[in-house]
Amino acid sequence: MGSNNDYNSFSMNNPLDPEEFKRQGYMIVDFLADYYHNIENYSVLSQVDPGYLQKNLPSYAPFGSESIEIILQDIKRHIIPGITHWQSPNFFAFFPSSGSTAGFMGEMLSTGLNTVGFNWLSSPAATELETMVMDWLGQELRLPKEFLFTGHGGGVMLGTTCEAILATLVAARDRMLNLIGRDNIGKLVVYGSDQTHCAVQKAAHIAGFDPNNFRAIKTSRSSSFSLLPQSLLKTIQKDLHSGLVPCYLCATVGTTSTTAIDPVGALCHVAKNYGMWIHVDAAYAGSACICPEFRHLIDGVEDADSFSLNAHKWFLTNLDCCCLWVKDPNSLIKSLSTNPSYLHNNASESKQVVDYKDWQITLSRRFRALKVWLVLRSYGISNLRNFLRSHVEMAKSFEELVKLDKRFEIVVPRNLAMVCFRVIPSVAHGGDANEINRKLLDSMNESGRVYMSHAMVDGMFIIRCAIGATLTQQEHVIIAWKIVQEHANTILNKTAISA
Amino acid sequence: MGSNNDYNSFSMNNPLDPEEFKRQGYMIVDFLADYYHNIENYSVLSQVDPGYLQKNLPSYAPFGSESIEIILQDIKRHIIPGITHWQSPNFFAFFPSSGSTAGFMGEMLSTGLNTVGFNWLSSPAATELETMVMDWLGQELRLPKEFLFTGHGGGVMLGTTCEAILATLVAARDRMLNLIGRDNIGKLVVYGSDQTHCAVQKAAHIAGFDPNNFRAIKTSRSSSFSLLPQSLLKTIQKDLHSGLVPCYLCATVGTTSTTAIDPVGALCHVAKNYGMWIHVDAAYAGSACICPEFRHLIDGVEDADSFSLNAHKWFLTNLDCCCLWVKDPNSLIKSLSTNPSYLHNNASESKQVVDYKDWQITLSRRFRALKVWLVLRSYGISNLRNFLRSHVEMAKSFEELVKLDKRFEIVVPRNLAMVCFRVIPSVAHGGDANEINRKLLDSMNESGRVYMSHAMVDGMFIIRCAIGATLTQQEHVIIAWKIVQEHANTILNKTAISA
Repeated sequence: MGSNNDYNSFSMNNPLDPEEFKRQGYMIVDFLADYYHNIENYSVLSQVDPGYLQKNLPSYAPFGSESIEIILQDIKRHIIPGITHWQSPNFFAFFPSSGSTAGFMGEMLSTGLNTVGFNWLSSPAATELETMVMDWLGQELRLPKEFLFTGHGGGVMLGTTCEAILATLVAARDRMLNLIGRDNIGKLVVYGSDQTHCAVQKAAHIAGFDPNNFRAIKTSRSSSFSLLPQSLLKTIQKDLHSGLVPCYLCATVGTTSTTAIDPVGALCHVAKNYGMWIHVDAAYAGSACICPEFRHLIDGVEDADSFSLNAHKWFLTNLDCCCLWVKDPNSLIKSLSTNPSYLHNNASESKQVVDYKDWQITLSRRFRALKVWLVLRSYGISNLRNFLRSHVEMAKSFEELVKLDKRFEIVVPRNLAMVCFRVIPSVAHGGDANEINRKLLDSMNESGRVYMSHAMVDGMFIIRCAIGATLTQQEHVIIAWKIVQEHANTILNKTAISA
Repeated sequence: MGSNNDYNSFSMNNPLDPEEFKRQGYMIVDFLADYYHNIENYSVLSQVDPGYLQKNLPSYAPFGSESIEIILQDIKRHIIPGITHWQSPNFFAFFPSSGSTAGFMGEMLSTGLNTVGFNWLSSPAATELETMVMDWLGQELRLPKEFLFTGHGGGVMLGTTCEAILATLVAARDRMLNLIGRDNIGKLVVYGSDQTHCAVQKAAHIAGFDPNNFRAIKTSRSSSFSLLPQSLLKTIQKDLHSGLVPCYLCATVGTTSTTAIDPVGALCHVAKNYGMWIHVDAAYAGSACICPEFRHLIDGVEDADSFSLNAHKWFLTNLDCCCLWVKDPNSLIKSLSTNPSYLHNNASESKQVVDYKDWQITLSRRFRALKVWLVLRSYGISNLRNFLRSHVEMAKSFEELVKLDKRFEIVVPRNLAMVCFRVIPSVAHGGDANEINRKLLDSMNESGRVYMSHAMVDGMFIIRCAIGATLTQQEHVIIAWKIVQEHANTILNKTAISA
């Protein structure tokens, strides 16, 4: 690599000098290892006030360079207190963001190689590893062969489920408009339930669907908030009667609020009569389907058009990585391909290669396959299954603890590793049960000892305890429940006194 | 963090064990430092054949775990040969993907903290650092205050320019449809030039615009492929005459094919009479505008609605990071916000915080601000300017070398650090000049010693030499030109003989 003379003449050292890269790299590795070691010392939910950071940092970028030592000091002093610690073993909010050593190392490699993998030629290994890993994972999920490259389908790694939904929605839209004419975009209808992720409605809006034509079909507690096929059928029939055109159904396996499981097979049975595109969003629950005992959750997927899960949620893969499989890659390519002359190359023209730019919203793309490959190889399917099972077991034990306390109820039967519970209304001593549960949650979270989140379903404010942070072990779950009880004691006593 | 006992009972160690994290972290840091040290030993453009990887790797994921040592061996043996080395000092294709030690360390920190920053509460530091860094960078670019948070505008870090364009296009679409009614989506027109990035046409398609309503206004060599205001005006008037509605203009500062500079001020002057949204795409050239002598390239931006650049192109920030500034964040928020009950929180309801999920296509988002912050602080504005200038100087010297060889011509005057050249038709000895230049480029790239790319403009096949890889120094540019000449000698001699 020669001398740094040319750089020095601009008074800047080579920004990729291998020795300095090593020195700083070790420092950051040590910093993060210490962070994981000490993570329980931090408040899980950050307790800073809005605007805290601008009070602590200068308003202008520095003119001269600063040392990594000084920067790391600022990170410890000013950034860490403003972090909500998703990697904490006491993080039970939302869904997990399960990082791992393997996921991290994969991301380092991808960041270090820093390739821009828009097409095959721009780094053949990036594309080929991605197609291979997507087939590997698809096989472990026992996806029908039509979703794999070996069966003329295929998979792609995107950033998030939002992108997977937008990409498939645009493909679905164009497939239908090609049949009925582009002028009819205002007639197309998108179906989900009132539990479907907000990403679907947002994607429909982005893709130019009429905002009135998103159907959030009502679900209820009696059917554990899953979308009933007969409700879908009725809604479709009503739309047809109004001259509208069913276009896209999103069935969810593991909804955000309660991990409700939509019955994929039965819903496909209804939807496919109308030529709709059926997407199965298993962002959270999909990972668990590598375990034979949970695979039934996606039974019926053989009749869907596409299927996605977030490896960054519960598959030890650091953010971001959404895995999307489609039966008909050409439908994506027809809607999303670009062919500027500056990207023409023999490999693409030979049609023997995959150009992933045509499978997604954006052109540039990171080499995400490395991290999933490292996770699969470093841990192996056997350990990954047991890791997922360990979270489900912990959730079971949390659920048992909740059931033992008569002041609480489990709101819906637990699926996988998330428990939905609340203080029952009769214990609220005439107070508003939702208000009591909200106070309980805020009080727990403000303690900094755990972080759980909430959902509103069927008018009920419920507390969600999602187990799956990589560092969480049985002891954390037991303590988490004790913390719930302590805060409940205080709040319910106060309520009892004031009642 | 306690013992690993619970993990061991599932025969899997803690996937975030600090000691193992350190051990592997050091290994990967060493691996990448060696990679940078030896990078010139590799063929810049990968020379593998389609399907090479699946021949070398198993078709199924492993059941048991594998060691990092074995995996790294496979990376060396099977992945590195399939990488096109964007970090090589001999990489002159497309635009640079300029990684750096600071960019890498920032990405490591973000990957290690692994927060999911959809809203302020999910990690206040992630949002607040991003707003601060976007203002820092905006100030250095001398963006008008209306684009900064301190002036009621603001910036956001997205993955790529494609996302910036799609987000602003949806905002523009909705702003116009709110005036003229949603049914008129088929009347909206998007304007760019025939040099505008294909992302604009693709985004318009995704957002439901009529595919017939994208205007790629013709440019020509005589005006260096920049979009002429009078051509825009004529096109708009024709559309108005046909009952269509101008909606969005993308002006490009530094086009992909030739780094043409659209005259931002004059184009805004035309477009703003029609209430259009004006976006300035400075993906490549924007970074250079922190140098006072290049700032004039974006003069007129004060009349635009939004402005974006890719920090991952030429600002030492590893992929991915597109910086987008808008004058009216509410127009983005109106089109892109979601408000599911499970994300309700006091901070968001107080309206005192930024929730970036409402500024972008996706919900989840990485903590990209860290890497840009580290780049700005580690190098400082002064060194960053000199770094960018050094590339421009190298491009100047390459251009001078081309001019000295009478067989070649500079196709358009050089802007910044990219040189467009070709063998002139009269030297082609009656052969097809495009064919000769294509052969020359293929021959150079197949040698593995350099990688340049091409563009087709005005019927001409041109060779693009884009200088900006972090490791590139003057000596590499001199050698690159010698390589061009060597291959030209061989090819032109052959042509002469056969002619």
